[in-house]
Amino acid sequence: MNYHKALLFVLLIAFSCGKQEKVLVSDSNSQHPKLILTAQGVKDIRAQLGTIPIFDNSLQKVKEEVDAEIALGIETPIPKDYSGGYTHSRHKRNWFILQKAGVLYQILDDEKYAKYVKDMLMQYEEMYKTLPLHPKTRSYARGKLFWQCLNDSNWLVYVSQAYDCIYNYLTEEERNKLETNLFKPFADHISVDSPQFYQRVHNHSTWGNAAVGMIGLVMDDEELIQRALYGIKGKEMDKTAKDDDGGFINKSGKAGFLANIEEPFSPDGYYNEGPYYQRYAMYPFLIFAEGLHNVKPELKIFEYKEGVLLKSINALLNLSDADGDFFPLNDGQKGMSYYTGALVTAVDISYKYGSQDAGLLSIAEKQNSVLLDDSGLAVALGIREGKVKSFEKKSINLSDGPKGKQGGVGILRNQDMELVFKYASQGSSHGHYDKLSYSLYENGEEVIQDYGLARFVNIEQKGGGNYLKENKTWAKQTIAHNTVTQNETSHYQGKYEIGSQNHPDLHYFSSDDENVQIVSSKVSNTYSGTEMHRTMAVIKDQDFEKPFVLDIMKVEAESKNQYDFPFYYFGQVLDANFEYKTPKFLKPLGKKNGYQHLFLEGEAKATNENSKFSWFNNNKFYTLTSITNNKDELLFTRIGANDPQFNLRRDPALILRRNNVKNTTFVSVIESHGSYSAVSESALNSKSSIVKLQVILDSDSYTAIEITSIKGNTKLFITSNKNASKEAKHTLSIKGKNYSWVGAYHYKQI
Amino acid sequence: MNYHKALLFVLLIAFSCGKQEKVLVSDSNSQHPKLILTAQGVKDIRAQLGTIPIFDNSLQKVKEEVDAEIALGIETPIPKDYSGGYTHSRHKRNWFILQKAGVLYQILDDEKYAKYVKDMLMQYEEMYKTLPLHPKTRSYARGKLFWQCLNDSNWLVYVSQAYDCIYNYLTEEERNKLETNLFKPFADHISVDSPQFYQRVHNHSTWGNAAVGMIGLVMDDEELIQRALYGIKGKEMDKTAKDDDGGFINKSGKAGFLANIEEPFSPDGYYNEGPYYQRYAMYPFLIFAEGLHNVKPELKIFEYKEGVLLKSINALLNLSDADGDFFPLNDGQKGMSYYTGALVTAVDISYKYGSQDAGLLSIAEKQNSVLLDDSGLAVALGIREGKVKSFEKKSINLSDGPKGKQGGVGILRNQDMELVFKYASQGSSHGHYDKLSYSLYENGEEVIQDYGLARFVNIEQKGGGNYLKENKTWAKQTIAHNTVTQNETSHYQGKYEIGSQNHPDLHYFSSDDENVQIVSSKVSNTYSGTEMHRTMAVIKDQDFEKPFVLDIMKVEAESKNQYDFPFYYFGQVLDANFEYKTPKFLKPLGKKNGYQHLFLEGEAKATNENSKFSWFNNNKFYTLTSITNNKDELLFTRIGANDPQFNLRRDPALILRRNNVKNTTFVSVIESHGSYSAVSESALNSKSSIVKLQVILDSDSYTAIEITSIKGNTKLFITSNKNASKEAKHTLSIKGKNYSWVGAYHYKQI
Repeated sequence: MNYHKALLFVLLIAFSCGKQEKVLVSDSNSQHPKLILTAQGVKDIRAQLGTIPIFDNSLQKVKEEVDAEIALGIETPIPKDYSGGYTHSRHKRNWFILQKAGVLYQILDDEKYAKYVKDMLMQYEEMYKTLPLHPKTRSYARGKLFWQCLNDSNWLVYVSQAYDCIYNYLTEEERNKLETNLFKPFADHISVDSPQFYQRVHNHSTWGNAAVGMIGLVMDDEELIQRALYGIKGKEMDKTAKDDDGGFINKSGKAGFLANIEEPFSPDGYYNEGPYYQRYAMYPFLIFAEGLHNVKPELKIFEYKEGVLLKSINALLNLSDADGDFFPLNDGQKGMSYYTGALVTAVDISYKYGSQDAGLLSIAEKQNSVLLDDSGLAVALGIREGKVKSFEKKSINLSDGPKGKQGGVGILRNQDMELVFKYASQGSSHGHYDKLSYSLYENGEEVIQDYGLARFVNIEQKGGGNYLKENKTWAKQTIAHNTVTQNETSHYQGKYEIGSQNHPDLHYFSSDDENVQIVSSKVSNTYSGTEMHRTMAVIKDQDFEKPFVLDIMKVEAESKNQYDFPFYYFGQVLDANFEYKTPKFLKPLGKKNGYQHLFLEGEAKATNENSKFSWFNNNKFYTLTSITNNKDELLFTRIGANDPQFNLRRDPALILRRNNVKNTTFVSVIESHGSYSAVSESALNSKSSIVKLQVILDSDSYTAIEITSIKGNTKLFITSNKNASKEAKHTLSIKGKNYSWVGAYHYKQI
Repeated sequence: MNYHKALLFVLLIAFSCGKQEKVLVSDSNSQHPKLILTAQGVKDIRAQLGTIPIFDNSLQKVKEEVDAEIALGIETPIPKDYSGGYTHSRHKRNWFILQKAGVLYQILDDEKYAKYVKDMLMQYEEMYKTLPLHPKTRSYARGKLFWQCLNDSNWLVYVSQAYDCIYNYLTEEERNKLETNLFKPFADHISVDSPQFYQRVHNHSTWGNAAVGMIGLVMDDEELIQRALYGIKGKEMDKTAKDDDGGFINKSGKAGFLANIEEPFSPDGYYNEGPYYQRYAMYPFLIFAEGLHNVKPELKIFEYKEGVLLKSINALLNLSDADGDFFPLNDGQKGMSYYTGALVTAVDISYKYGSQDAGLLSIAEKQNSVLLDDSGLAVALGIREGKVKSFEKKSINLSDGPKGKQGGVGILRNQDMELVFKYASQGSSHGHYDKLSYSLYENGEEVIQDYGLARFVNIEQKGGGNYLKENKTWAKQTIAHNTVTQNETSHYQGKYEIGSQNHPDLHYFSSDDENVQIVSSKVSNTYSGTEMHRTMAVIKDQDFEKPFVLDIMKVEAESKNQYDFPFYYFGQVLDANFEYKTPKFLKPLGKKNGYQHLFLEGEAKATNENSKFSWFNNNKFYTLTSITNNKDELLFTRIGANDPQFNLRRDPALILRRNNVKNTTFVSVIESHGSYSAVSESALNSKSSIVKLQVILDSDSYTAIEITSIKGNTKLFITSNKNASKEAKHTLSIKGKNYSWVGAYHYKQI
């Protein structure tokens, strides 16, 4: 029986938008499994088993894992601990094992798995019906199995899949017992009983919505399904209330799964909290979407908002470095990558329900794992049929905001260099005060880092695995980022209320010429009366060994200020062309806004028109060349002051400080060059290829930079500060020479 | 023609030892090549080409490299720079290319390579005959092509091979020109004109001896050969003079290649300067030995001192971690490994002239390169014939000293853990004041580090690539090592004169039981009136996830002292069971002997009988459990104070400080446990398995430790502090319980 044959009758159903239309609805509602696995899918999988290596291997691993757990016996301890503690870890493990055991029952048709799921669910039923709130009180929305509703929702998203798989194995009486005492009250606790968690646009709510919706689909409970899609009916939220992280609970009044797709995703698929939380939210978005697709195809969920769910997977894969690690924008823990389970889901679903992009198969191969469902089968068949192509990441601009009008993230890629320029909006409660900041990667290694978050996720010894206070006092602050801090104060005064009402705007993005790729953005209101405009280019030029970064940051202010401009490099200081002094004692650089966490390790006055600083990391050489004047200071700093629990990494920075000026332009070039081998002990190309960097024009309309290389050639880069149209014709005279070009910028040898 | 047929006549020759005997001498003296390649070897290689993949690939790479250089043309600039500078790098490159081009001429029989070698040698001849001393004056023995004779010697070791390869290609007139104007004066400059460099026992001299000897073998110049083997005839050295590094130039009066084998190698093949310099010296030792073997087989060089040259290769391979990186004992740059060219030489020569150990073939495979000579052919044939076995590194004790009586290095290995315990002698001028120190590795990663050297070899921006002053002020000092510093003073007052007259002694080494491996050593005279005795064990016990380290350091002194006992861990502080305070400002911990380079980042008084400290590195958890009393202090430190050029790494340590006591025993356990995945965000086994560690007896004769695990089991470890004989029977009563055992230690569950 295939899918089309299963379409048996036509129903008239009502959408919330008020329109009425005829759609086809399958009879699959009456069958199980129907949610992620389908009855037809199970048949197809069974027919292919043994001939689809990546699927067979994934199945074998899951089987070994589940068999080992079954041998250990079932444990459902009374909830007690925070993340990382025993009861938390145990219940978390249970949800994964339940889901997997359910799938094994379907694929292998072996009752021992169904029995295991049933027995554990009955234990949960027995415990849950009298379970009070979790004893730990830190959360704004406490769960019952876990200290926060978020984790309860995680549990239900997985366990509803397990329930679906053994639905037909259970008697009606057993189902009634589970639904009445466990699933329904469980879904109610995380929704109607916890609206501050459920009734909002936030990754937490997405989990909540998906949990309620998925159990609703399995139970065929239309009320739960509607609550999942559209939020709690008639529930009005306090628009001024805030959550633990300082974000508004629900300022817009919007809620439900569809609103959670509508609001945080831009039309390009960028998720406003950034890739780390997108990865986290991806699983409920996609798994619930898959369930909706299977049970309620009339919703056309994968076409919702012009197919943004599938687009978002492509965006997310592009927000990873050469190793597949996600860029740690906003609150993001380093090391999270497309090897995480949620991305196996994302890649498989994107392949099956999207355009069968062969590039996705190469990532599936690297993941070396597929979902044990219809989408995993599709991927496994694609690989078996030799369709794999490499997934090529190119330069890409991703707009932010529901309509793509609230800034974005531009990624410039050339050879091994990747520059990630962040001009996105605040990013909800997980956002940082980092407007026009960037980070730089070389072949998956950090060259100029974004600090990420101050948290050791699930490591109990560090604050229960939760956000540390240094996340607010350091990681979110502007000085922790590679952008300008004015007067030792963070952007938007470090206030979410202001930050969430403002955002930078794209000036232009250009990647047509693969040798000269540029992103340029402007922002107002980071500081009252101050305008910032940053243009960053990655340029491949034959006078340089590797692509270099050209960075132009124009600041215009109404009054004189101090501007701090940091470079969070890694590794060891090699050389500088300015004389620095190192203090006997180390003192914090400042008192607040992140400055209290920086020790001052050295300081200098700039003495050259170009200050040069070179460092050494991972056996490669790097040089910063920055245009300076003799009032500029150069500060060597290291993170770690006022850090009584050693929560912060002791990472260095060089900060260029310019004081007592109104308008100014920072211009720098960062080169990666050469290499060192500790085995042959030979150093190659260990010095900069730049002899001179200068601004030859800097007006409201244009900024023009000359770069002279050691080969004696001079390159001119002109960027248009006003009209950035691709078609605009420009003519300009500098020092008696005339230049004309079409487009936002001009780069040539002179 | 094979080797045996080539033995045509018998000669009577005199050995320096005065004995006379009849030996067979080949007629190969009259043939070329004869030094490393032999005429027969060339025939054999040509016959196998195309059927020996690792050899063919090595040949292809060399050919591509040399062809590229030939295309660029010959450059022999007037010497000017230190290491890392242009002229240095160019002449260094030339020596490698000359040697390779010579080999290519022989193997490929293509005259273009001979012509290239000839042309470059003639340019050197033209330059050298009027060349003054190198203009840079920093060396105690200035070269001509390079700033130090050492590098001139490097050049000649390689170039004599090139000369041998094209010897028959040149006319007699051309040979006379080269020998008269270049090779003979070159050999004289580095020997008779630079006795402070040549006439000593030191790795520098080994290069000098080999250089003089190898060109002597090619030129058939018996005077040079004798000078190489036995030193400059009749030359008496000032026994009190010192070199740049503070070592005596020649205290013993010994010199020459044979003395350089005799003195620094222990009977086990341990080289007294440590693995980093052994690696460096290995090439001239072995390549000259190979030449001697081929041209003067009567010397039986590979049997000299009971075959110590070949034994030393095995020792060196055992002095590397799981990745093949050498342990950075004494002055050693991290990252140097058995992938370096000198070890390709060592492995290939050891295979051919030793016992054809199949384990060496596995290292050759990893190196993915062989020598283009008879030994490389032997390895390539061994691999082709499928003889490869894995090279297994086990626990090993390597004695130090010419007769093996001056301490040593003990390496304890169990599963992924490797403990390197250094109780060696001073280690010549490259030695550190680090008696009874250790470092700990897990699967090739440093857990408790040895700092290594303070130098960026060949990186010109860092002091010309030479030793930095922090090598003396920090890296050599006792506090830079994981051993006891008394009263903030280094061992032997940090004086080479004292250090080189003393050494620790082995108490016992035991690896018979693979679950309990132990090394124990005593040292006197590190401080006047103080005796130290350290016993370190790596124990695999079923109550622990991984093998743990038990560390017992007994200190007995004549007066009350302060003892500092550091742990140079890596990574981030997780947790401690003592309350520490972090200062607002960071100040140096002391004023001298390395203390001036440590910032104090935190301090505590011990408040528990067991102080516990856990940290997190490379996604693994570690816990130190140390027995403390309530007068003990715990200091968090970080390297980097008084470091005006940022020459030192900012690495942390925890220092246990015990003040105002005479005799004391430090007892600690280090556990590696668990893991963290940044992808799944799950933390496994993140806590210590020890609930209690206690000393239940500590006498002159025995120290007994109890370790109680979280499983509730208690293990007893007793070490005999006096009689460490394997056969000795011990009976002992502790707290009314009687224990009896045979051997130096006792470990059991009680």
